[in-house]
Amino acid sequence: MLTYSFDHKGKDTLYEYLYKQIKQDIITRKLVPGEKLPSKRALAKQLDISTITVENAYSQLAAEGYIYSVPKSGFYVAAMPEEGTAVRIMKNTLLQGQKQAGAAGQKEPRLQADERIRQEDKNDIFFADFVNNTTPSANFPFTTWTKLMRETMSENSQDIMMKSPSAGIYELRSAIADYLYQFRGMQVEPEQIVVGAGTEYLYGLIIQLLGRDRIYAVEDPGYQKISRIYQANSVSCSHVPLDEKGVSIAALEHSGADILHISPSHHFPTGLVTPVSRRYELLSWASQSDGRYIIEDDYDSEFRLLGKPIPALQSIDVSEKVIYINTFSKSLSSTIRISYMVLPDSLMQQYQRELSFYACTVSNFDQYTLARFIRDGYLEKHINRMRNFYRALRDAILTDLRQHAKYPCVHIREENAGLHFLLEVETELDDRELVKQAEKAGIHISCLSQYYYNQENADSHTFVINYSGIEAEHVKEAVGRLMDSI
Amino acid sequence: MLTYSFDHKGKDTLYEYLYKQIKQDIITRKLVPGEKLPSKRALAKQLDISTITVENAYSQLAAEGYIYSVPKSGFYVAAMPEEGTAVRIMKNTLLQGQKQAGAAGQKEPRLQADERIRQEDKNDIFFADFVNNTTPSANFPFTTWTKLMRETMSENSQDIMMKSPSAGIYELRSAIADYLYQFRGMQVEPEQIVVGAGTEYLYGLIIQLLGRDRIYAVEDPGYQKISRIYQANSVSCSHVPLDEKGVSIAALEHSGADILHISPSHHFPTGLVTPVSRRYELLSWASQSDGRYIIEDDYDSEFRLLGKPIPALQSIDVSEKVIYINTFSKSLSSTIRISYMVLPDSLMQQYQRELSFYACTVSNFDQYTLARFIRDGYLEKHINRMRNFYRALRDAILTDLRQHAKYPCVHIREENAGLHFLLEVETELDDRELVKQAEKAGIHISCLSQYYYNQENADSHTFVINYSGIEAEHVKEAVGRLMDSI
Repeated sequence: MLTYSFDHKGKDTLYEYLYKQIKQDIITRKLVPGEKLPSKRALAKQLDISTITVENAYSQLAAEGYIYSVPKSGFYVAAMPEEGTAVRIMKNTLLQGQKQAGAAGQKEPRLQADERIRQEDKNDIFFADFVNNTTPSANFPFTTWTKLMRETMSENSQDIMMKSPSAGIYELRSAIADYLYQFRGMQVEPEQIVVGAGTEYLYGLIIQLLGRDRIYAVEDPGYQKISRIYQANSVSCSHVPLDEKGVSIAALEHSGADILHISPSHHFPTGLVTPVSRRYELLSWASQSDGRYIIEDDYDSEFRLLGKPIPALQSIDVSEKVIYINTFSKSLSSTIRISYMVLPDSLMQQYQRELSFYACTVSNFDQYTLARFIRDGYLEKHINRMRNFYRALRDAILTDLRQHAKYPCVHIREENAGLHFLLEVETELDDRELVKQAEKAGIHISCLSQYYYNQENADSHTFVINYSGIEAEHVKEAVGRLMDSI
Repeated sequence: MLTYSFDHKGKDTLYEYLYKQIKQDIITRKLVPGEKLPSKRALAKQLDISTITVENAYSQLAAEGYIYSVPKSGFYVAAMPEEGTAVRIMKNTLLQGQKQAGAAGQKEPRLQADERIRQEDKNDIFFADFVNNTTPSANFPFTTWTKLMRETMSENSQDIMMKSPSAGIYELRSAIADYLYQFRGMQVEPEQIVVGAGTEYLYGLIIQLLGRDRIYAVEDPGYQKISRIYQANSVSCSHVPLDEKGVSIAALEHSGADILHISPSHHFPTGLVTPVSRRYELLSWASQSDGRYIIEDDYDSEFRLLGKPIPALQSIDVSEKVIYINTFSKSLSSTIRISYMVLPDSLMQQYQRELSFYACTVSNFDQYTLARFIRDGYLEKHINRMRNFYRALRDAILTDLRQHAKYPCVHIREENAGLHFLLEVETELDDRELVKQAEKAGIHISCLSQYYYNQENADSHTFVINYSGIEAEHVKEAVGRLMDSI
């Protein structure tokens, strides 16, 4: 039975306080997914408060997705993500009443409950979150976007009313092709591009295109959502270990896989950049059999902070073996559900023959607005601004790390490729203990080992530092708390 | 080799005229899908025009999806839909220079080439189109929608930046639940609703939820896109014949199917409304085994023109066996890619456990705007206006049919359920010939037999009259041409 004392509720109303207490118990997993909550009447009686108060608290929790109701049965705790619970940055002391923008990253299966954050929701349990690899929505160019949306409404009012081609409107595909040429050196025809509502949706299309009777290989360690999607689609999924250059060719051959899904330009979570020699080996592997393909997931190539971007696999592929996939959720905001893939001509023809009966999943409003946003140079400006922003953020974190008394006990790795780096710790503690210590200090963090499918290969004592969601004014304290905890 | 004379090009530029000629050859299938076009240089030489002219024409055709390019090979004619070629209404004589709104229906796999209609594109080959079951986009409440979009931008600017829960924002799900209660008599919790970018996307989620190792039954005759989606997802699909009440229970039992996908409130294309007795038989069938479910596709229930709407299967289901699915593409416009499904509680819990890692595919802008549109009563008003509009349109068509000299040779059936009816013709001609005669008269039309999977069961000599895309001022002439052709 839930028991809460209302002695410390402060200025909160009874309902607000109860809501926050239950929410905290869900976030900290005192209440576990699937667990039934007491009936409103029972809890009200237990806590000596009115049923209406409990009802209000439950309604709020249900509205935010922390709990769900089963008619004629009651309320249950909602599902949690399997990998690292993503909890929003807490601003216990620093919060100045402003509403927090609870952006969620494209690459993190976030706590469903965490996806709706309300104004009144100001207390959380962590001071800083190095798990949630979001790009802060406060950086979304809202004013520009709404200006372009208004322009679209007035200047494209007729176009908007026409059905989009299955692969997306030509203006957007053309703008993406130009953008890829200018900023990624890729020579791509607009006709090769398929636009969809998120990379997850596009993965589903790729499976329909390439077939379910294949083995799909993913990287181990890797981003677990990708294998979850393959599993949800009943596709055999093989976890291939990495060596120091990326996916091991021997292990890949051994897996029997036909399709390889990788992020060669910036692997998550190791940060590894696959060198050109291995890229050619991978292309050679793919070219050895008709049914082999490589899905190149280039999700944060825009944010490489040092040196020239690595050329995409797609651009050195002459055998029509690479499906390039990228998203605007990372560079813009997860609110804009637009991703795209570049298909080799033969697959694009197959798409047109077999799958173009599908309607495009992105609304015309968003497609025309994004086309303008790219065409008028706003995307480039935005990415440049964001790159400077993240570089400054990373530098601040690195500086604070280096100034900390415990700096000799840690090693910083892979800090230039994108929006995360690794922090290896000299310690006797096991990873679970390391994470727990950090959590006690108010720091939400994950270890590299958590992203391994085969635990025996896992590197231990290495934190994955996703810094894109940390606010600049919290860096010093967050780094201090983390370093003190180890 | 293509040969065109430029003698009749009128005011068109050379490029425009060439573009139109080739397009017409593609639409009329003189040029067939996959056929290679002559090289730009060869065609230019052949027609004694410049290569630039050919290049411009090809580019335009490629941009509109009529043809596609294969690098280092050339241009090819793009794929055509398998069922009834949907060609936009032609207004040869009546067109007064206004831009046509080339809306495309949610229920018709349209000619990909037809999905991008440009201003200059005013000549087509049909006077009227009874195949394309679109709702005209001219009826889309554009002014209201953009007003609400502006309100959303200014009033929900913070909310828009937060990631939507997987199943959709609460405001929209709540508005849909209220709407279903008021206008469909359904008692549904917002927590049971999953919002997605189109019904096609939701079908894919349902397959992931219910599993691929099941047999999915669809109606025969039926809307072929549904079975195409099951096939694209590698799911066994069984075509179950209908009797006078709907899906035959004996045939359903015999099919071995676990999942039944139906439109009991208005079957396409027969127009059949499944009576309550058969609905209970269907629910009884479903309740006989744990793994059985019914997908109730209620796609145009709003447009029943006579009498009370039939209660949804979902609302008489007490065994958690019905997945209700509907779309706003039909009632609003295919430009708005928002559909939803109502899951029984047990399936919703499974969704939350297994599939809520998926990000919602609808942008927050569209979700908040639609929530306002429903909440503020605009959807109700719009549907009422549309219902009156369609009733008037149908009445005009029926009146003209009845006044025609050949009226004694035809029988009108199922004219009250939704946006199409059947026209049975007393004739010796076979269906193929009937359609061809109509096409010669400038009328694009399909026969009931074209929607059958098992042709031996097919009713012949029956036209399917999709009238929602016909413009009022064309009714008299369209009906005259059709009737004269038989």
